[in-house]
Amino acid sequence: MQNAFALGIGIGTRAGDGRWLEVFYASPLLHPDGALVRALVEGSDGAIAVGANTAAELTAEQWRNVASRLTGWPEQARLAGQAATIAGRAVLTLLATDRPLASAPETYLKLHLLSHRLLLPNTMNLEGIFATLPNVAWTSDGAVAADELAAKQLEARLAGRTLTVHGVDKFPRMADYVVPSGVRIADASRLRLGAYAGNGTTVMHEGFINFNAGAIGPNMIEGRISQGVIVGAHSDLGGSASTMGTLSGGGNIVISLGEKCLVGANAGTGIPLGDRCTIEAGLYITAGTVVEVVDEDGVVVRTVKARELAGGSDLKFIRNSRTGRVECRTNRQAIELNDALHANN
Amino acid sequence: MQNAFALGIGIGTRAGDGRWLEVFYASPLLHPDGALVRALVEGSDGAIAVGANTAAELTAEQWRNVASRLTGWPEQARLAGQAATIAGRAVLTLLATDRPLASAPETYLKLHLLSHRLLLPNTMNLEGIFATLPNVAWTSDGAVAADELAAKQLEARLAGRTLTVHGVDKFPRMADYVVPSGVRIADASRLRLGAYAGNGTTVMHEGFINFNAGAIGPNMIEGRISQGVIVGAHSDLGGSASTMGTLSGGGNIVISLGEKCLVGANAGTGIPLGDRCTIEAGLYITAGTVVEVVDEDGVVVRTVKARELAGGSDLKFIRNSRTGRVECRTNRQAIELNDALHANN
Amino acid sequence: MQNAFALGIGIGTRAGDGRWLEVFYASPLLHPDGALVRALVEGSDGAIAVGANTAAELTAEQWRNVASRLTGWPEQARLAGQAATIAGRAVLTLLATDRPLASAPETYLKLHLLSHRLLLPNTMNLEGIFATLPNVAWTSDGAVAADELAAKQLEARLAGRTLTVHGVDKFPRMADYVVPSGVRIADASRLRLGAYAGNGTTVMHEGFINFNAGAIGPNMIEGRISQGVIVGAHSDLGGSASTMGTLSGGGNIVISLGEKCLVGANAGTGIPLGDRCTIEAGLYITAGTVVEVVDEDGVVVRTVKARELAGGSDLKFIRNSRTGRVECRTNRQAIELNDALHANN
Repeated sequence: MQNAFALGIGIGTRAGDGRWLEVFYASPLLHPDGALVRALVEGSDGAIAVGANTAAELTAEQWRNVASRLTGWPEQARLAGQAATIAGRAVLTLLATDRPLASAPETYLKLHLLSHRLLLPNTMNLEGIFATLPNVAWTSDGAVAADELAAKQLEARLAGRTLTVHGVDKFPRMADYVVPSGVRIADASRLRLGAYAGNGTTVMHEGFINFNAGAIGPNMIEGRISQGVIVGAHSDLGGSASTMGTLSGGGNIVISLGEKCLVGANAGTGIPLGDRCTIEAGLYITAGTVVEVVDEDGVVVRTVKARELAGGSDLKFIRNSRTGRVECRTNRQAIELNDALHANN
Repeated sequence: MQNAFALGIGIGTRAGDGRWLEVFYASPLLHPDGALVRALVEGSDGAIAVGANTAAELTAEQWRNVASRLTGWPEQARLAGQAATIAGRAVLTLLATDRPLASAPETYLKLHLLSHRLLLPNTMNLEGIFATLPNVAWTSDGAVAADELAAKQLEARLAGRTLTVHGVDKFPRMADYVVPSGVRIADASRLRLGAYAGNGTTVMHEGFINFNAGAIGPNMIEGRISQGVIVGAHSDLGGSASTMGTLSGGGNIVISLGEKCLVGANAGTGIPLGDRCTIEAGLYITAGTVVEVVDEDGVVVRTVKARELAGGSDLKFIRNSRTGRVECRTNRQAIELNDALHANN
Repeated sequence: MQNAFALGIGIGTRAGDGRWLEVFYASPLLHPDGALVRALVEGSDGAIAVGANTAAELTAEQWRNVASRLTGWPEQARLAGQAATIAGRAVLTLLATDRPLASAPETYLKLHLLSHRLLLPNTMNLEGIFATLPNVAWTSDGAVAADELAAKQLEARLAGRTLTVHGVDKFPRMADYVVPSGVRIADASRLRLGAYAGNGTTVMHEGFINFNAGAIGPNMIEGRISQGVIVGAHSDLGGSASTMGTLSGGGNIVISLGEKCLVGANAGTGIPLGDRCTIEAGLYITAGTVVEVVDEDGVVVRTVKARELAGGSDLKFIRNSRTGRVECRTNRQAIELNDALHANN
């Protein structure tokens, strides 16, 4: 039998009407052991089923039963035992398969998988993500349903307290759920849960990583990594650098940066880059930008739209400050390799 | 008799010397019913007067009197009743007319009118706004006078507590006062009270809306809406896009965007745009930028300063990547309409 | 005998293993009076020594002894007395000389000196700064060691509480430690401790000041002041404006702006500027940018790399929107002065 896709024992917050607003999974598991899943199914007394994607709210007794069967998995056993003490706020989520998302607890589990670095961006089915996530006011008192916020604010004021609202969004801040090892995040409001921050990643104040996007690490991220974008090891995004989040102009190419790239401050890219590419500070390359390709002798080799250079390595993009022309400086070897890359386009 | 301009029952914070630092109005009213105003005047025992702009601190008894007269206005009656229980922290603010601002409670009321979407930006008299607003440290313990912060910080430290300072500014964050319906605000520190966020507006992490500025909605705002600037429905600001906040280069034109415009990532505008305009990613148009207007056949129709295109529709601004020249691509119909628009300049 | 370099009575937070995570100095002193230092040395019973750089944890009795000897320095006496009541959390830090940094309390003291405006950026020895600073999760419960965060988050969740993580970084937010007079900081997450914000400085939401960097004041800062960069009085950084943080392209020149400069929105500089310089919105000048220098008559005087204009005054940088060429518009007088400036390069 194939292993289940993912599993998590979560602690969450509900709206006044009982809907889950958010769920925190301390130790989510990817491809959990089949024996572990069976122990959970049995312990939960059928509240979850082996082949289904379910988010189940167990009774305290069910949680205790689950805990008692997890002797081989001490961390999960501990979590189940703790869940028994807060049964109304705990949830057991099993994703048998990587199907479209059907509930907030499921979506939160998948977002955790990314931020716990158990999976890379663009490797999961995230269909239904916006529909399953409620809009939440993230406050100093925790998650509050957006439509319950006004009443809570008045109540706090009357009590002489302050309710600080950090954001009102479907996505919470990653760092309130998990901070993976070897990472610095200067301003936690800039990473959504579901961001992937690899070991050795520093995200400065102006940096940003959306859900299902990330930096492999090590990286210095002072610009914006849009949804779906991946930045390779040893690549840097300068301050306010932009990566186009959706499909590039000419087709269905997802933006990514290879290794050892530099996108300068206030620059941007609408095409994916291979390794060792540079875009100079202040220059925005879109898929439709017409670029003169210049070899190491300063000879213009050809004139192309930037999308034709997509994925190429050893490219340096500048705007010639004497002519205003956008140039891609490279070498013969890179030109030939990149030609091969695009030969079958 | 003309209706009063605005009215609010507020709960606020004072400095050590009694000055109001900030006021929260749960349900501000624009053009309140004359009978409601008279009930307040009578109930307050003359603490406020029909024709005056006043922020009055009532006694508990006065608040109760007010509450008892507001049977026709249950929400305001409830607020007045609650105010009676916290009399030292409550304020009754009546703006008989839209005059220059004279006190912090008045200014906070007008800022609330904007963020509650009762009025659009640029439709109120905001003279005196900076003079009436004290500089406040916005902390996890609420509002603290800037000059009292150091003592509070030491006190908290001695008590083993942390005082988090979210900002030190004359303006608070909008979301701590009101989050209108149908809005997402990824990072609440980016909207000042007094911002107007229309239904369907998403303000991403890099977005920003100043006071007396706004998005009509629906909009995707990933750039900066400066003071006085309005963005029309279905228009988007890309990441770090800039709108010039004050008068454009050549005159007293307030910047605005019409409907269905797109200002690309890292782009900017110093001129107002009509409908269906685009500025490509990375291009900044200032009022003085010399622009070649190009028609649908690629023919250069004329060369103008961008300010002469102010308010025009169906304009696409790019920097030609082969020549470095800034171009405005449009069509004959738009050129003729825009000519008419500017014929009487 | 030469005065000691600096002195501070601090209150801090420790990790579970006793390491200092951060220290708050309410009233740090630069070049403290020799008699004060001797009183501290004597009162501390040798826990600190006159000639050494030490961060000492005194006993309650030692703190009381210190306090009793500080009759001539009432503020320090008060702090020492308070420290006696929280002895495990207090630290006495003496920097006899401006040597490389050896511990977190020393580093925090030097960062305080900058933010208290006792010293300008680039005037202290900050060697060892990254090595001495632990990576800290800055939470609503105060500083937490990065590797202890996950356990605290789970603990808070089980208790039904929310732990908000504001950042995970070696540097804290300046405003949580000190807000100097006459300053506005719209979003406190944008200034690191060690930033220098002069009187009259407003840092808007998009502004940023790194440690060992600053604005002399008055300034309107809507862009990013990188490590080592200083902005002179009456100079403004537009929204998202960038200053290159490290050495400029051609040598070891630290970036700075003189007085009355304007770097426009989404613009940037990789060279230092003198007084009254402007870089137009959207234009990024790097050290290697080739620039046509144009005099007041529109005559091209010469073509240079921007680094040759470093430090010059009365320069206005634009990109000619008809030709795409980067130009530096100036006048004969400035050209001659700048020639003199660089004559001995």
